[in-house]
Amino acid sequence: MGGNSFGTFFRITTWGESHGKALGVVIDGCPAQIGLSAEDIQKELNRRRPGQGIGSSLRREGDRVEILSGVFEGLTTGTPLSLLVWNEDVDSSPYEELRNVFRPGHADFTYQVKYGIRDHRGGGRASARETVGRVAAGAIAKRILKMEKIRVMAYTVELGGVKAKKRDYPEIEKNNLCCPDGPAARKMEEKIEEAKQRKDTLGGIVEILVQGCPPGLGEPVFDKLEADLAKGLMSIGAVRGVEVGAGFGVAKMFGSECNDPLGPDGFKKNDAGGILGGISNGADLLLRAAVKPIPSIGLEQKTVNHSLQPVSLRIQGRHDISAIPRILPVCEAMVAMVLADHLMRHKAQQRR
Amino acid sequence: MGGNSFGTFFRITTWGESHGKALGVVIDGCPAQIGLSAEDIQKELNRRRPGQGIGSSLRREGDRVEILSGVFEGLTTGTPLSLLVWNEDVDSSPYEELRNVFRPGHADFTYQVKYGIRDHRGGGRASARETVGRVAAGAIAKRILKMEKIRVMAYTVELGGVKAKKRDYPEIEKNNLCCPDGPAARKMEEKIEEAKQRKDTLGGIVEILVQGCPPGLGEPVFDKLEADLAKGLMSIGAVRGVEVGAGFGVAKMFGSECNDPLGPDGFKKNDAGGILGGISNGADLLLRAAVKPIPSIGLEQKTVNHSLQPVSLRIQGRHDISAIPRILPVCEAMVAMVLADHLMRHKAQQRR
Amino acid sequence: MGGNSFGTFFRITTWGESHGKALGVVIDGCPAQIGLSAEDIQKELNRRRPGQGIGSSLRREGDRVEILSGVFEGLTTGTPLSLLVWNEDVDSSPYEELRNVFRPGHADFTYQVKYGIRDHRGGGRASARETVGRVAAGAIAKRILKMEKIRVMAYTVELGGVKAKKRDYPEIEKNNLCCPDGPAARKMEEKIEEAKQRKDTLGGIVEILVQGCPPGLGEPVFDKLEADLAKGLMSIGAVRGVEVGAGFGVAKMFGSECNDPLGPDGFKKNDAGGILGGISNGADLLLRAAVKPIPSIGLEQKTVNHSLQPVSLRIQGRHDISAIPRILPVCEAMVAMVLADHLMRHKAQQRR
Amino acid sequence: MGGNSFGTFFRITTWGESHGKALGVVIDGCPAQIGLSAEDIQKELNRRRPGQGIGSSLRREGDRVEILSGVFEGLTTGTPLSLLVWNEDVDSSPYEELRNVFRPGHADFTYQVKYGIRDHRGGGRASARETVGRVAAGAIAKRILKMEKIRVMAYTVELGGVKAKKRDYPEIEKNNLCCPDGPAARKMEEKIEEAKQRKDTLGGIVEILVQGCPPGLGEPVFDKLEADLAKGLMSIGAVRGVEVGAGFGVAKMFGSECNDPLGPDGFKKNDAGGILGGISNGADLLLRAAVKPIPSIGLEQKTVNHSLQPVSLRIQGRHDISAIPRILPVCEAMVAMVLADHLMRHKAQQRR
Repeated sequence: MGGNSFGTFFRITTWGESHGKALGVVIDGCPAQIGLSAEDIQKELNRRRPGQGIGSSLRREGDRVEILSGVFEGLTTGTPLSLLVWNEDVDSSPYEELRNVFRPGHADFTYQVKYGIRDHRGGGRASARETVGRVAAGAIAKRILKMEKIRVMAYTVELGGVKAKKRDYPEIEKNNLCCPDGPAARKMEEKIEEAKQRKDTLGGIVEILVQGCPPGLGEPVFDKLEADLAKGLMSIGAVRGVEVGAGFGVAKMFGSECNDPLGPDGFKKNDAGGILGGISNGADLLLRAAVKPIPSIGLEQKTVNHSLQPVSLRIQGRHDISAIPRILPVCEAMVAMVLADHLMRHKAQQRR
Repeated sequence: MGGNSFGTFFRITTWGESHGKALGVVIDGCPAQIGLSAEDIQKELNRRRPGQGIGSSLRREGDRVEILSGVFEGLTTGTPLSLLVWNEDVDSSPYEELRNVFRPGHADFTYQVKYGIRDHRGGGRASARETVGRVAAGAIAKRILKMEKIRVMAYTVELGGVKAKKRDYPEIEKNNLCCPDGPAARKMEEKIEEAKQRKDTLGGIVEILVQGCPPGLGEPVFDKLEADLAKGLMSIGAVRGVEVGAGFGVAKMFGSECNDPLGPDGFKKNDAGGILGGISNGADLLLRAAVKPIPSIGLEQKTVNHSLQPVSLRIQGRHDISAIPRILPVCEAMVAMVLADHLMRHKAQQRR
Repeated sequence: MGGNSFGTFFRITTWGESHGKALGVVIDGCPAQIGLSAEDIQKELNRRRPGQGIGSSLRREGDRVEILSGVFEGLTTGTPLSLLVWNEDVDSSPYEELRNVFRPGHADFTYQVKYGIRDHRGGGRASARETVGRVAAGAIAKRILKMEKIRVMAYTVELGGVKAKKRDYPEIEKNNLCCPDGPAARKMEEKIEEAKQRKDTLGGIVEILVQGCPPGLGEPVFDKLEADLAKGLMSIGAVRGVEVGAGFGVAKMFGSECNDPLGPDGFKKNDAGGILGGISNGADLLLRAAVKPIPSIGLEQKTVNHSLQPVSLRIQGRHDISAIPRILPVCEAMVAMVLADHLMRHKAQQRR
Repeated sequence: MGGNSFGTFFRITTWGESHGKALGVVIDGCPAQIGLSAEDIQKELNRRRPGQGIGSSLRREGDRVEILSGVFEGLTTGTPLSLLVWNEDVDSSPYEELRNVFRPGHADFTYQVKYGIRDHRGGGRASARETVGRVAAGAIAKRILKMEKIRVMAYTVELGGVKAKKRDYPEIEKNNLCCPDGPAARKMEEKIEEAKQRKDTLGGIVEILVQGCPPGLGEPVFDKLEADLAKGLMSIGAVRGVEVGAGFGVAKMFGSECNDPLGPDGFKKNDAGGILGGISNGADLLLRAAVKPIPSIGLEQKTVNHSLQPVSLRIQGRHDISAIPRILPVCEAMVAMVLADHLMRHKAQQRR
């Protein structure tokens, strides 16, 4: 049981390394007769493509997705969908000097210890490039959700210590950081400039909103909706914390504050984030994920090599300043896949 | 695929309702020849037993566990372990008036919508009493971890807004709140007294420390160690947020601050919480879970009944003021089971 | 991943040893709002109860099933069903002399080698008594199938070399062997008398017919309907072969004979046994399972003990002459569970 | 939960249609540091390649496998292996007239009913070409088994009613039918000639022998070794029956004949086929699979079209006379994967 599959019904398996021949994903369990073109998937991939990031990496491949199976004359057939993206623009030579060095904050050390071997080029399987498969599969999950009028939207609510103070959703498409607070976005840009000068990187917080989620999704007591969502988000490399609704804020609340009163027209507030007892309650889902700064910084760092001898390391090349905003479609993909999966699980249990 | 199983190798399935005949758990995949007595399990159950809580509920059953299968002459046999606890002291009459009312903050509404039927007595399956099975199974997981010298410890680091400022571990066993900061524990007690006067309840934060965790556990890219831990903790009813290492704190950090430098003797700090790239790195694991206030408060609340008509509700009886500290052994159980499971998964992949 | 769970949606986990305290099963994934009483389950259990067999074993416990969870006021709630049968009439003393002996044809040797420990009393987990949990869960699966007007029926078509030459279904309930050919049943009885005189046991063949199976069940390319059915039947201790439709007979057929022509009113014959390409085609399902003779014979046998020293063994007590007919409800249970599971899987994939 | 994955630890997911762009397989869970080249896999693929069959189909693509991920500098890395074979020589035009016709014995009807859409070209996903992914993954499983000195060998023991009367293993490589009985092979060839004249096809029986299987593999009570093997073999399109050891022959045996006596040097005969109680006993594994005649015959057949109107059908082109011998490497692949999987499961359960 390798850990490269996700979901039960809408089940994906991703594969591929940063500097290998290609990356891809197989989706098993997608319902038949859903209209699907490569363009539907490409649109999502373009959002996470290199060059969309802040101070983005040089690598500029097109990341063109190919559908290799599972679609016939524009419709899904119920058989597995195989999606593939070639690694076109790969220069592994800069990584040669890192072959025997454990970069701080990266998975170099743990992969070496676990497997006794690792593809050091570009981080191998542990590269953020691995998320190509997630985003591609997520595009199909979103397609399914759209049929049920469910919409998943991720945006930036904190970056480098600057917090968004409002949720002005149309603003999200107006700034590069996809932040729903214009003035905050501008302060974030300043923070980015500061980090760039320092040759450093920044962390932040992503919020995910799901509108139109029907009540009844989630399978207690272990496959609760928030449990599967937490797993999905926490499985993204940079994510170090996940919360739902009031989240860590509940620690300071009285029960009388935290409970969402229920009226004839639904819940009067939404500190539960749309989930009660592990099951969606019909309100919007609201989640947040903490994103750590990218560990590849331009500053000199102390570390060790494979012989555990101390070495100094200065990572070359131009890397993103933050995983935000390129991580946003990845967060959306994980949430969309959990929802597509739970929609199918819920449907399976219906009596006729 | 109901959601009542957890784990892949060390796999548990729990069953039972708050006011049903009994609760229990089946553990499939426990290795053979492990010494195990009912007392090993009972010790853990006693920590979550009613009466251990703050302002604890009246129900005082002994919660005596019976081992029905899988142990022969004191040793596990490799066959499934079935553990059962009878519900001895059940008076469902106070719940009769709640039969058609949706209590705020509880799963009443969502179970009704999802299943079209619910056992309203004591919250049915959605009761915190469901965790009996988790704690019983967790005791066996802990037994396995002990053989590998791994120790899991959960303690209170925030309650009602009062934070523990130090980690003085011996202090944990000296106060009722299992807080590693004596003076903070006393302030928490004051906060509890205040909540009791208000007929209200309190939220808090639990921290879980794992000592002795070997490097190499975790299966990228989806079954990362922190992803499975997040799912396990988030599947506990009261938990609304989970973080690892620096957690949500990463949002304010530079990369140069967040990266843990690696020296010949290991990591020089532990903001990663012992996990890199989804795989344990040999340092201590460090996690935190946000615990919401118990939704059963003594204050009058507005809600609706099954006909969606507004009703006023005042929950009778004496309930705990906080899920803390009774939730601590539940958190330990979930973490222990994830680790036992990943130990087995890791072992399966070893070449001879 | 112990091997004690079966199914994906309608998922059961069985537990218990022949001479342990109890045996049971947890069913996770059963839809809510299905009427269910202990009697529904008891009826099936009675069919496999000791005393129903030929030359049946002395043990005469009532095998009364208890429903411990998952049913509220006569209806399933969508939460796990826990079913339990106590082992009431257990005398383990006759097994004491077998503690260190490997009985031929039994799992004594393999359990000892695999687990390094075994509960030798009555065969422990490897006893046919383990099927109590299967039959109990199967009763619920049958309940679900009944709602869809699907009927599963197992009967004897060969015993001790005597073959049933016709399928006169009403005859099944008229003879103790559940054979659809009266005269053949009488010859089988003679064969049984002969075996009894020899202190020996008999093998046979069970046929399973499923009427009313809708088309569309089965998930290629691995979870084909016949593949899951084969696994289910082959997991029964005594079964050594499984075939569908014409089965091993296909080896002697031309393609022109084997193909079932399709007309406007459906298939004109059914050598496919109701399954094409792993998916049910709307015709009756037809399966056969080869059942080996019970290995506990009254004749003296040569074997070895735990020290691998040769010993002579004469198994005491009165055992059944054949696993047939008590194995019939077990076969029905396995088939019913596979179908209930695939019904749910199929439903999950439907577009709205 | 689509049905396109197989195995738990050594877990494969296959994808691809007969006339789509490509076919492939992802293997998740393969241990790290295993030497692997495309040639290792190609050798197995060549055994099932078009042109190896009897009266083989015209299609002559090279079926060259590409390893797209999971191997670094000649060694597996513990990350998913993605294997791909392009469909190079695809002419779908002959299938155009079959677009709306249900070919007898094929899955055309059931795919249409289940999914409401089907790729009719070359049978789509239901084509035997789907087994490319199985054989490719099986080659890796065999590589793992080889490290443990386990050898899997499939051969022809019956074809068109002609039975092999001996098991002269060196003979297998000396005739095109891979039959361990030279004279029988010659009679089979005559039978093939007869079928060819009739424009008809032939069924047969494959036997699979596993040498060097260690005791202890298999996970009772559901994931018994023979149960998983039966599922694996029965999931192959043409297989209609599976038996282990004496198989259906047990129906005619007395218990005293069927039991394999155990001596100090092991089992004195092997009617159990190397498995007792679902666990390998150290003897050779012996299985047989019944293979139906290929349904694509040259004779005219009666069937219906999508409107359920009667039509006459004569399938054009040159098809194989029998799935044997091209099915042999497929059978080996399935058995090898089950064993690799159970080796890993067994290892996971070992105490240190």
